[in-house]
Amino acid sequence: MELTKNFDVRNERNLTMLVDFYELTMGNGYLKNGVGDKIAYFDMFFRRIPDEGGYCIMAGVMQLIEYLSSLKFTDNDIEYLKSKKSFSDEFLDYLRNFKFSCDVWAIPEGNPVFPNEPLVTVRGPAIQAQFVETMILLTINHQTLIATKSNRICRAAAGRPVMEFGSRRAQGYDGAIYGSRAAVIGGCSATACTISEEMFGIPAVGTMAHSWVQLFDSEYEAFKAWATAYPEDCLLLVDTYNVLKSGLPNAIRVFNEFLKPQGIRPIGIRIDSGDITYLSKKCREILDAAGYEDAKITISNSLDEHIITDVLVQGACIDSFGVGERLITAKSEPVFGGVYKLSAIEENNIIKPKIKISENEEKITNPGFKKIYRIFDKTTDKAIADLITLNEEVIDENLTLEIFDPTYTWKKKKLKNYYVKDLMVQIFKNGKAIYESPSVSEIKEFAKTETDKLWPEVLRLENPHTYYVDLSKKLWDLKQSLLHSYSEIYEEQGE
Amino acid sequence: MELTKNFDVRNERNLTMLVDFYELTMGNGYLKNGVGDKIAYFDMFFRRIPDEGGYCIMAGVMQLIEYLSSLKFTDNDIEYLKSKKSFSDEFLDYLRNFKFSCDVWAIPEGNPVFPNEPLVTVRGPAIQAQFVETMILLTINHQTLIATKSNRICRAAAGRPVMEFGSRRAQGYDGAIYGSRAAVIGGCSATACTISEEMFGIPAVGTMAHSWVQLFDSEYEAFKAWATAYPEDCLLLVDTYNVLKSGLPNAIRVFNEFLKPQGIRPIGIRIDSGDITYLSKKCREILDAAGYEDAKITISNSLDEHIITDVLVQGACIDSFGVGERLITAKSEPVFGGVYKLSAIEENNIIKPKIKISENEEKITNPGFKKIYRIFDKTTDKAIADLITLNEEVIDENLTLEIFDPTYTWKKKKLKNYYVKDLMVQIFKNGKAIYESPSVSEIKEFAKTETDKLWPEVLRLENPHTYYVDLSKKLWDLKQSLLHSYSEIYEEQGE
Repeated sequence: MELTKNFDVRNERNLTMLVDFYELTMGNGYLKNGVGDKIAYFDMFFRRIPDEGGYCIMAGVMQLIEYLSSLKFTDNDIEYLKSKKSFSDEFLDYLRNFKFSCDVWAIPEGNPVFPNEPLVTVRGPAIQAQFVETMILLTINHQTLIATKSNRICRAAAGRPVMEFGSRRAQGYDGAIYGSRAAVIGGCSATACTISEEMFGIPAVGTMAHSWVQLFDSEYEAFKAWATAYPEDCLLLVDTYNVLKSGLPNAIRVFNEFLKPQGIRPIGIRIDSGDITYLSKKCREILDAAGYEDAKITISNSLDEHIITDVLVQGACIDSFGVGERLITAKSEPVFGGVYKLSAIEENNIIKPKIKISENEEKITNPGFKKIYRIFDKTTDKAIADLITLNEEVIDENLTLEIFDPTYTWKKKKLKNYYVKDLMVQIFKNGKAIYESPSVSEIKEFAKTETDKLWPEVLRLENPHTYYVDLSKKLWDLKQSLLHSYSEIYEEQGE
Repeated sequence: MELTKNFDVRNERNLTMLVDFYELTMGNGYLKNGVGDKIAYFDMFFRRIPDEGGYCIMAGVMQLIEYLSSLKFTDNDIEYLKSKKSFSDEFLDYLRNFKFSCDVWAIPEGNPVFPNEPLVTVRGPAIQAQFVETMILLTINHQTLIATKSNRICRAAAGRPVMEFGSRRAQGYDGAIYGSRAAVIGGCSATACTISEEMFGIPAVGTMAHSWVQLFDSEYEAFKAWATAYPEDCLLLVDTYNVLKSGLPNAIRVFNEFLKPQGIRPIGIRIDSGDITYLSKKCREILDAAGYEDAKITISNSLDEHIITDVLVQGACIDSFGVGERLITAKSEPVFGGVYKLSAIEENNIIKPKIKISENEEKITNPGFKKIYRIFDKTTDKAIADLITLNEEVIDENLTLEIFDPTYTWKKKKLKNYYVKDLMVQIFKNGKAIYESPSVSEIKEFAKTETDKLWPEVLRLENPHTYYVDLSKKLWDLKQSLLHSYSEIYEEQGE
């Protein structure tokens, strides 16, 4: 872990200006209209789980903290903004002396999270709370997307190690670096991305490519060269020419000729193309017959949760998976649709809830300053539901708790024998970071523990049960009253 | 442009260690086996155009040059690698004193490119040429993917400006930053990503979000506040509550009350949700009737090339598009499958071609050190075909040139009245960068000029004609002879 810390210097890019330009024009406008310091509340949340899954895995909070801790406009930034001729001197001065002063709450990384609940809440001066929109969304959207996809793939692998191999197909350098971090949070055992081990302490692994085999005069020569260089780490890629006719026989010959005399067991073989099920079964038979029952078979060929499920059902003999492009880009659904919406403002120290309405009911926001309680069954420790409440609401675990569906309100459930957990933690107070991120391996373990608390019906990959995310009676009433205050606009819509 | 240069400092992250671990284990193994300095040739190429398109737009060369120019292992890197206990002291010394000495050729950014032709070729010591694999793939795969998608979207917009609005949904920070760069190369007129203007001089634009409207006591107050702050830049987002019943009437009222008396024309309105076609037509009518025929209508709502084509066919009244997640992640196909394969080695100063064979014929590589000629018709200046040849081949434009399909070799074409262009340029000589990248706006113009040289049949979005990429007779013969030398392995495959 000590090594890791030294390398955080790589993060010291100044990303302050990675901001949608409209956050600057709005900031300038807020200031001009005397509302720059009006206290605003924003929630980051998402509306739909990718891949029709049952839950997502929260990720990216550590990088969000790093970003919010290092906000700083350089002289060059100010000079550039001045050249746009859109901003007042007062606003440019504000940026020059920018001091982040918001309060921020977030759901810690590794938690299973669900649609419509705030993952991040920001409270602070309108200029600032607005300014951080792009980076909050970008950071949490990206890592939560990949952690969630990784979790699906790792579940499909049913206990077999999954290694993240996708750097070369990632969408940009950070796509590779933070993508591998998120992949490990989601469950991967290792990554091929070397810099990620330096930065996050997650294990980097790798052996050889086809080019190793091609560079030598023959496959046998290439394997021999490897076994000589890495006798203790002899995992051979056997599909450069033909797995069964060339690769595997050459591998076994080299195991016999160069490892056996030294009493060293080979790690195994890797196959990167062809009919995985057929080849892995055949290779298993042949390896066993040759006395290499302990040699592992690793597969890496455009895999995802569906292919992994399928080949395992077919009885493929696979010990571990290397997963590339379909994990590092979440190929089947490469966008995590988190949004960042104003939920309240303060006027004379009173919180005034705000709502965004829409013809599409799902796009209507939850107003007010809120928190989330996750409700667990006392006997089983399984998660029963999440309850979004107003921030001041306290749940007395000794009382029966009635929860109800926010749309079909006659669907009710009375809970006894439960306990609750306040899901969000405060990560910034008056602009100062007050939360220390666990290590990536700790987050990974935490994710495993917390997902284990979900019912199998929520965990399954296909047609999972929808986990309950309800609103407290108080929040539901508030939302209804705000909606009714806008009902005139809706009445006239049929015109 | 002067401002831009100052900001290149943002790129000064050391990404040397963004490398698949197996490139290091192979490097160490090459050295141990005495082949570290053997001269190797690698090609980067792709096999399939995303979205069933007719061509791709090359992008990312500038960042590749920056990376290759700045390769450097720090003491911390060496210390970390040492801790892995996989590497010899000799190899660690090699890295400590690493001096990039390869020759590199690339197709310049903005060029239309096609499957199976080398986009990048590296010649150099095996350790080095192997080492740069991940970053070459990552850089070119990402930017070429986004430039290609952007080009599709901009073509669908049929001359209307398209703005890149996707930072918040990008896959990581570089996904946003370099994605917006590639989007402009592909044809976008601007981006919302502020830092991209600082870094690349591409215009950053933006006005307001829904939160601006919500923060004020009413939509009218919010619009009034905007018109006061930005009278000359009055583009109002009209869908926070209801476009036709609230947003547009309030916008027109504010145009009339606050801009008209000053003799200022509004920029227009933006709609971010709902039925684009219906709303844009209605808004156009109402704006025209109110005397704002010059007010522009901008649309931004989960757009891509298909939706844009569709709404324009339906007669939507749209002046410009803001495109987000589906562009910045190339959502419909978020992976560009570039690969990096050994094509030759040198032995006693003689180039010895290498081939990677596969059961899947499309995965068989083109051997040898190669170049690409693009052949143009002298009369029309239209591109006829690309011809991949061995590097030493020269085409005499005065002679008839016969090209043939590399699979169906009886499909032949005799060319007269043509000229050729050598597509690749050398960007590194003995490890030293010798190519200066044009600006992003120059590359964008170049991309437009070069794509205009493709036939409309290749340009169209649906079922485009397959552009010819042929092999010279000499290269074809070489490939056949290498394939036949491996035919024994294939003979036995039916077993």
